[in-house]
Amino acid sequence: MSDLTLVTFDWVPEMPRGFVRDLRVRWALEEAGLPYRVASTPFGDREPEHFAHQPFGQVPWLSDGDVSIFESGAILLHLGELSSTLMPTEPHSRSDVKEWLFAALASVEAASQPWSFFKFSGDTDETPMRKFFDGFLEARLKHMEGVLEGREWLTGAFSIADILMADVLRLVDRFDGLAAYPACRAYVARATSRPAFMKAHADQLAHFAAADQRAAEHAEGSA
Amino acid sequence: MSDLTLVTFDWVPEMPRGFVRDLRVRWALEEAGLPYRVASTPFGDREPEHFAHQPFGQVPWLSDGDVSIFESGAILLHLGELSSTLMPTEPHSRSDVKEWLFAALASVEAASQPWSFFKFSGDTDETPMRKFFDGFLEARLKHMEGVLEGREWLTGAFSIADILMADVLRLVDRFDGLAAYPACRAYVARATSRPAFMKAHADQLAHFAAADQRAAEHAEGSA
Repeated sequence: MSDLTLVTFDWVPEMPRGFVRDLRVRWALEEAGLPYRVASTPFGDREPEHFAHQPFGQVPWLSDGDVSIFESGAILLHLGELSSTLMPTEPHSRSDVKEWLFAALASVEAASQPWSFFKFSGDTDETPMRKFFDGFLEARLKHMEGVLEGREWLTGAFSIADILMADVLRLVDRFDGLAAYPACRAYVARATSRPAFMKAHADQLAHFAAADQRAAEHAEGSA
Repeated sequence: MSDLTLVTFDWVPEMPRGFVRDLRVRWALEEAGLPYRVASTPFGDREPEHFAHQPFGQVPWLSDGDVSIFESGAILLHLGELSSTLMPTEPHSRSDVKEWLFAALASVEAASQPWSFFKFSGDTDETPMRKFFDGFLEARLKHMEGVLEGREWLTGAFSIADILMADVLRLVDRFDGLAAYPACRAYVARATSRPAFMKAHADQLAHFAAADQRAAEHAEGSA
C-alpha cells in the first residue's frame, strides 16, 4: 500500500502557473487513480528541509512512506512501477516506455528548455547563438513529427512517457513553437484533453490561487 | 544471459572524441565486467536503419538480444538492472540511484549543455542570454558542490548515477567550468581515475582513430 505525498511550492508567480512540474506528478497520479495528498514548501525562503528533499531547491518531490524522491522523471518512473496503467509490465513495452521517458528529457526538453528561456526573456536579438538554439529545437521537433505522425502514443498505450513528452511539447506550444509540426500539436491536444490532465491542471491552478487568496486575506487583516 | 551490442558512429570529428556518449555505456559495461561487442553506424549518411534504432539520428544505442534501447540514461538503467555492481538491489538505495540518474540529465546537463554550446561555438559576446546561461549552470554547480563536499559518490556506493553525473561534469571541466568548485573537480578526478573509465575512454579514442587509419589507407589506395 502506498502512502503518497506530493510536495510543491506554496506559491509561484503568474507566468509558470499551469506549467510547474508538480503537474506531471499530479497527472500520473490521476491517471492511475492512486490516492495522494499535496503539501507545500515555501517558494520564498527555501529551508534546509527543502534542500534535504530536493538538493537544487526545486519542486516537486514525492514521499512514498519513508522513501523521498525528487526529479519529475524519477517520480514518474516510481509511479510507473506502482501502476500498470502508467507503465506496462511486458518487458519489451516497459523498455520502450523507459527509453522515451529519458528521450523526453534528454533529447527534447534539453532543446526546448533553452529555447523557452529565450522566449520567456522576451529577448528578440537575432544573435548567432539564438539561431543555434532555434535550430537545435527544430532538429528535434522534425524527428518527433515523424515519430508522432504514425502513432497515437509513443509506445503501444498511453504511459508515463506520454505524460512527460506531452508536458515538454506543451510548453513549446505555449510559445507557438509547434506551428510547423501538426502531428506534435495534435499529440499535445490529444494528451491534454484527457480527464486526468484536466483535473491535474485545474488542481495546480487552484493550489496557487488559494495562496493568492490567503495573501489577500492577510493584507486585509493587517491593513 | 545477455547478448550486448553497443552501436556508435564509425567516425566523428576530433572535437567530440573522448566525449561521445557511447563512453557512458562502455564505462558501465567495463565496471560490470559484462561482455559486449561494439558495432558502427555511418556518421555521414544516416540510414533508415539508424533512425529505426535511434529516432533522432544520434548515438549510442544498445541491443540486448531482441531489445534495442536508445538514450544513454535508459541504457544505463537497463545495465543497472543487469548488474548489482552498477545499481544496488536494496530498494532505498536503488531509488536514490534512479533519482540521481535523472538529476544528472534533467538538472545538471540541462544547464551544462547550453553553456557548453557557447563554449564550443567560441562565441564570447557578453549578451544577456549568455549571462543567463552562465548563471543557470552556476546555480546548479553551487548545489552540486554542497552535495559532493560530503560524499565520495552520489549514493552509498559507486553506481550508474556517478557514471552519468561524472561524465556530465567532465565536459564542464574540459572548458574549465569547475575552477570554483573543488569538490566537483575532485569527484570528476576520482571517477575518471577508475580503471573502467580509462579503458572505456581509450577504447573510444582507438575506435575513432581506426576510422582515420582506414580513411588514410583508402586515400593511399585510390591515389
